[in-house]
Amino acid sequence: MDSRSNSVNRNTKKNDDDNITQREEALYSVERIFESKEVPSWQNQLTLRAFCVSFILGILFTFIVLKLSLTTGIIPSLNVSAGLLGFFFLKTWTKLLEKSGILKQPFTRQENTVIQTCVVATSGIAFSGGFGSYLFAMSEVAAKQSTEANNAFNIKNPSLGWMIGFLFVVSFLGLFSVVPLRKIMIIDFKLTYPSGTATAHLINSFHTPQGAKLAKKQVKALAKFFSFSFLWGFFQWFFTAGDDCGFASFPTFGLKAYENKFYFDFSATYVGVGMICPYLINISLLLGSILSWGIMWPLIQDRKGHWFPADESPSSLHGLQGYKVFIAIAMILGDGLYNFCKVFGRTLYGLYLQFCSKDEGAVLPVGARPSPPEPSMSFDDQRRTTLFLKDQIPIWVSIVGYVGIAIISTITLPHIFHQLKWYHIIVIYVFAPVLAFCNAYGCGLTDWSLASTYGKLAIFTIGAWAGASHGGVLAGLAACGVMMNIVSTASDLTQDFKTGYMTLASPRSMFISQIIGTAMGCLISPCVFWLFYKAFPDLGTQGSAYPAPYALVYRNMSIIGVEGFSALPKNCLTLCYVFFIGAIVINGIRDLVGKNKAKYIPLPMAMAIPFYLGSYFAIDMCLGSLILFVWTKINKAKADAFGPAVASGLICGDGIWTLPSSILALVGVKPPVCMKFLSRNANTRVDSFLNS
Amino acid sequence: MDSRSNSVNRNTKKNDDDNITQREEALYSVERIFESKEVPSWQNQLTLRAFCVSFILGILFTFIVLKLSLTTGIIPSLNVSAGLLGFFFLKTWTKLLEKSGILKQPFTRQENTVIQTCVVATSGIAFSGGFGSYLFAMSEVAAKQSTEANNAFNIKNPSLGWMIGFLFVVSFLGLFSVVPLRKIMIIDFKLTYPSGTATAHLINSFHTPQGAKLAKKQVKALAKFFSFSFLWGFFQWFFTAGDDCGFASFPTFGLKAYENKFYFDFSATYVGVGMICPYLINISLLLGSILSWGIMWPLIQDRKGHWFPADESPSSLHGLQGYKVFIAIAMILGDGLYNFCKVFGRTLYGLYLQFCSKDEGAVLPVGARPSPPEPSMSFDDQRRTTLFLKDQIPIWVSIVGYVGIAIISTITLPHIFHQLKWYHIIVIYVFAPVLAFCNAYGCGLTDWSLASTYGKLAIFTIGAWAGASHGGVLAGLAACGVMMNIVSTASDLTQDFKTGYMTLASPRSMFISQIIGTAMGCLISPCVFWLFYKAFPDLGTQGSAYPAPYALVYRNMSIIGVEGFSALPKNCLTLCYVFFIGAIVINGIRDLVGKNKAKYIPLPMAMAIPFYLGSYFAIDMCLGSLILFVWTKINKAKADAFGPAVASGLICGDGIWTLPSSILALVGVKPPVCMKFLSRNANTRVDSFLNS
Repeated sequence: MDSRSNSVNRNTKKNDDDNITQREEALYSVERIFESKEVPSWQNQLTLRAFCVSFILGILFTFIVLKLSLTTGIIPSLNVSAGLLGFFFLKTWTKLLEKSGILKQPFTRQENTVIQTCVVATSGIAFSGGFGSYLFAMSEVAAKQSTEANNAFNIKNPSLGWMIGFLFVVSFLGLFSVVPLRKIMIIDFKLTYPSGTATAHLINSFHTPQGAKLAKKQVKALAKFFSFSFLWGFFQWFFTAGDDCGFASFPTFGLKAYENKFYFDFSATYVGVGMICPYLINISLLLGSILSWGIMWPLIQDRKGHWFPADESPSSLHGLQGYKVFIAIAMILGDGLYNFCKVFGRTLYGLYLQFCSKDEGAVLPVGARPSPPEPSMSFDDQRRTTLFLKDQIPIWVSIVGYVGIAIISTITLPHIFHQLKWYHIIVIYVFAPVLAFCNAYGCGLTDWSLASTYGKLAIFTIGAWAGASHGGVLAGLAACGVMMNIVSTASDLTQDFKTGYMTLASPRSMFISQIIGTAMGCLISPCVFWLFYKAFPDLGTQGSAYPAPYALVYRNMSIIGVEGFSALPKNCLTLCYVFFIGAIVINGIRDLVGKNKAKYIPLPMAMAIPFYLGSYFAIDMCLGSLILFVWTKINKAKADAFGPAVASGLICGDGIWTLPSSILALVGVKPPVCMKFLSRNANTRVDSFLNS
Repeated sequence: MDSRSNSVNRNTKKNDDDNITQREEALYSVERIFESKEVPSWQNQLTLRAFCVSFILGILFTFIVLKLSLTTGIIPSLNVSAGLLGFFFLKTWTKLLEKSGILKQPFTRQENTVIQTCVVATSGIAFSGGFGSYLFAMSEVAAKQSTEANNAFNIKNPSLGWMIGFLFVVSFLGLFSVVPLRKIMIIDFKLTYPSGTATAHLINSFHTPQGAKLAKKQVKALAKFFSFSFLWGFFQWFFTAGDDCGFASFPTFGLKAYENKFYFDFSATYVGVGMICPYLINISLLLGSILSWGIMWPLIQDRKGHWFPADESPSSLHGLQGYKVFIAIAMILGDGLYNFCKVFGRTLYGLYLQFCSKDEGAVLPVGARPSPPEPSMSFDDQRRTTLFLKDQIPIWVSIVGYVGIAIISTITLPHIFHQLKWYHIIVIYVFAPVLAFCNAYGCGLTDWSLASTYGKLAIFTIGAWAGASHGGVLAGLAACGVMMNIVSTASDLTQDFKTGYMTLASPRSMFISQIIGTAMGCLISPCVFWLFYKAFPDLGTQGSAYPAPYALVYRNMSIIGVEGFSALPKNCLTLCYVFFIGAIVINGIRDLVGKNKAKYIPLPMAMAIPFYLGSYFAIDMCLGSLILFVWTKINKAKADAFGPAVASGLICGDGIWTLPSSILALVGVKPPVCMKFLSRNANTRVDSFLNS
């Protein structure tokens, strides 16, 4: 893992000549530019005004996320928008105060990061709360649309009280589970967290002191690609008047390839993400795409009628979809477990060594051993590492916090969901830290949070365990909620730690900001959902303005889930074993061959992601890689200096466009044109239909 | 007119500092690079091998043009493809001979230009011969599809004999009519002829001697954009499985704007043309577009039922189409006539001065007064002007040629078309030189040959004159053919003179090459058409593989035409007068205010072109202008050096793509996908239709 260089910080690599190095650093080092600016203490990073702004933005973003969950179910990353809007809100506020002469504390980038973290935490609950998926899947409305398990025992209708209570007892566990691992993720593994990195670049660029020439140029590059990406998103919007319309459905490599999800979807976000991610990740994604959508799925599809029933709907887990979901989960689990064991082993060994040497007497937290910055590190890395390690969060806090909340929720949850037993919850809480680590780790590699995938795993295991006769459907859905909340908040927090690392915000202020944000989310999200639920009586029914498509999907998954692994299609379990072991073996080989050769061996975690989602985003990301590669060949210095800024611009512009596009959707403004792709025969039929 | 700077040669402007000038010239001057290469005499430019290659390519291009005429009727410029293929053919030939040691004469760029000219002339006849328009409109097949004038007197079926005869007596007149004006067009007016210029750049780049660094870089830039443009054309092709499919129908500014032909059609050709044309042209085109499609046509459309019958079909000249065609013709005629009078007046004045001074005794041809190159000219311009003026074509040749052929054809034509009388023909031949000049001049400004517009004018005037009872329908169509052949060959020849000017090919060899090419075309085109006519018995009927859509359009125009000007819709004639006079007034103002202010006054000729065709190509060209403008602001030296190469690359790549795309069409390979643009409502209907 360590062989993976952090592509974002490549611009600060040392040169043999010291003069050049200093000159280069003055040019390329972000922290040299900010050197004169004092970093406030972590208490001063957490200001009241920051949380006021966060509260307002949190409500705004919760509206957007809920609206998206209830209409299409696809929710983009809102980190960047949060950072940007946070800046504009608080900058205007401080500008006004400054003019009236009553400004006490200047607006710092650390404060900006605190706002961003808090807003993301708040709006994150709107997603992980499952108002468009597992939570609403429990309702009578969803149950009525299914033929099985629609008796009262398998139904729990939404109500403000239990929703808030449920969220409060499950949403904080994820935070405590990843806090001890922050040093491993951010400093040792140097994981990229593309969205977090992009947000940090954005925040840094906003707060760059005057006079820093290159930074100004970088900001200009960022602004240029930000505008381009924003306008491109705006332009694309006009052509998306229906399903499968617009550039996002462009069959770039033909209709046959499009059916197998091989196409370039013109997403500026993922081209930018590809520019930030190391080449190996992008190549692994592409390899995974080819292996799954190019080879395996078509082959399995041909076994239709033999391996799985031919009349199964495409989204049924009894059919091809089952292979996709479970093989991906197996591979992700294999990779995640391998790395977890590796880290855990190393940690234990480190602890053992410390106990033996008995120095200082106190046991230091795992994620915070104060190792001095390596001398070969760039100035940026040195300064960031120093500040990141300054404010500790003692390991007992996370252990006490995790165990304490786990106990409370083990007692509380069975009272909310009678179908979920205390031993189910304890099992979840034993395995959750592993899965939270897996998700935070995968997200750091590829920017994909697979919270819903882990949620599905919980549906199947707990649902099957509880059994159909004991309300397994509802137990599975509730377990899904518990699991999703843990893994989702874990990856969000680690993402924010990365942003904090790059903006010199203290991990403590990040952690506290995330806790406050989560608490706000636990209150705001159910209230906003309640508003939707009351305002639109046909919420959740197919064909209405808010069909909440995933609610039905989740309910059906849970109904299948109670039948256990035997419900899986033929040979699926065998394939799962193969890929699970394969992932462990590949990781083992990567560690055995050494750093130099490991960079030619793909990463199983990255390979697994397109298994389920398709290849389009892998193609976007490879294009990003290709652009950066060609740029580096033409002018390495420029590519190193401006690559991350361009990539961030692309991600941010597209990201911020989701805000106006959501508002347009909320006020009911629909795009006017559909750019449709039809085969020649279909086109002939459509033409004659339209002319008739 | 002289105020218009030649954008292509801007790169050779003089600098105050002599050292810099020389250095710059060595870098940017094309002719300095070629200085060491001897220019062969005009006889040596005309080689047998060149005409052999031209003959083969001529047949190939004739196939392509005829196929396109008989399917859609839209034929792109093939100059560039001709230049490129000519080079590859002859280069391979000479390389082979060189290896076997029997090469006598090296392959020069002048010879390349001769091939290009000859091939363009040959394939030009396939277009101006009207096999998809006026000529086939005379046939029984076309007549049967119309309710009026389908008796035997108004029908003339195709036959190999009369078609070849007809083409031979009308196709050479255009050449003789513009030969005396070549100096005015190319040297005095510095007209751009974008296609001709692009071809010249291409040919020059192919023949650049080794060691010329900038030229190599330019060739690289050309090659890069050539590949991009070619691949872009290829990519676009996949999405054009039907009418109104693909990027060429992209409603960039919305469906409403698309209906009024305001959209960007993603044509690399016209973006390149826009980069070559001066800013004023592009702005004039856009102004014309806004005036016509933005203001006038919608206003006239609102008068539907008052100004013209509401039930008229959109393509009927009794309706809105009539306003478009006739107002455009009026404006073009006003501008053309003004400039023709100006030039004619100046010429007469020059002749008068020469007679008075009585020096040398001999009357020098109009277009070839040997004025010494101005000292302020760049080296390129000096050398090109010197060589362009070296080989004269005496004015008596063109007068004798024109009058001689006019007499022959006045005698012959009434024998081919009994409905066309000798006095009709004489009238056409009196006015033809003016119109030929207008077309060559307009083409030089904007790259659009308006041959078919002038042809329509002939249909209406001669058709109305002959009258319905005397076979006016056929007389009109025949007159259209005579007119189209003259104006089309005139603009082709002047375009080739520009290419010759920039490649130091002699005007004499250009002229002779054009004559030989035209003669080949007069034989090849009817034969190829005859093949199509015999091979596909349903040629020309709607719904077949070769519907020849324009044949019916032309026949209907002619049927309306015989009713005279009274057939024009209400107020159309008044508007024509207004725009005719307006064009003259604007030109007068341009000459009065002086060069500096004239560059802010639009050109009526350029304004008129989008009246009829729509705004899409004006938008393409303005985008090209914008790109060049921004580039010049960022780095003037680079933009000056590489702008024309990039533009040529864009034009050439898209141009050469027409060849494989035509071949694909010939062999029946159809694009697989239709990228369709539907309004939201239409999309909903289509979706429910496709799902039913």
